[in-house]
Amino acid sequence: GSSATPCASCKLLRRRCTRDCVFAPYFPPEDPHRFATVHRVFGASNVSKMLQELPAAQRADAVSSLVYEATARMRDPVYGCAGAISYLQQQVSQLQVQLAVAQAEILQRINHPSPCLCFCNFLKIGKLRRKL
Amino acid sequence: GSSATPCASCKLLRRRCTRDCVFAPYFPPEDPHRFATVHRVFGASNVSKMLQELPAAQRADAVSSLVYEATARMRDPVYGCAGAISYLQQQVSQLQVQLAVAQAEILQRINHPSPCLCFCNFLKIGKLRRKL
Repeated sequence: GSSATPCASCKLLRRRCTRDCVFAPYFPPEDPHRFATVHRVFGASNVSKMLQELPAAQRADAVSSLVYEATARMRDPVYGCAGAISYLQQQVSQLQVQLAVAQAEILQRINHPSPCLCFCNFLKIGKLRRKL
Repeated sequence: GSSATPCASCKLLRRRCTRDCVFAPYFPPEDPHRFATVHRVFGASNVSKMLQELPAAQRADAVSSLVYEATARMRDPVYGCAGAISYLQQQVSQLQVQLAVAQAEILQRINHPSPCLCFCNFLKIGKLRRKL
């Protein structure tokens, strides 16, 4: 970040944005809401610590996931991200049951096919032939 | 919390555990690791703020979800809980595709059944009858 336009983090924290600001690459001044959310849930110093413990190449992904988690926590202060995980786990379980039922039905139809149309047609043709 | 046995939070923060300690009901001294994890990721003051903004009846669930999220963040410092959500979303998509394929196969077997065993048996019986 340049000292002329501080990043969203330094603006909110009212401090000088230096060249080596750990937040500047990920919290541009145009989008102040992203940092405000992350700061409210995790705290600026925790986020700074977490980012500094990661190699630079992974920091953008870490910021995205922190913003995602913090947004979920603001939306659902009781369950946050864990609510989404619990919902998705239920959905996976339901789909696994539905898939098992469908696959059992396929096996059932392979092993015990219902009387088929060709059989019925064969019977009809047989009766016709006998009439002729 | 009683002042004789401070809760895990007050013990870690080295402060007196008062009767109205917001952490005490959820962080008993027997399990210091839970609070340490939540403190490392969210910070004690943020957790305290989040709990105080919730009705008492919802705080236990909120603590569980915060511990869950913080544990996920410690295990996966880049993606945290968001990694689990992304994985589960992929799993849901795959299961939905597999289910759609299975249901299409069932419809296919209902509308166009393969020549059934009874048909083959009928043919054999027919041939036998003609021989007799």
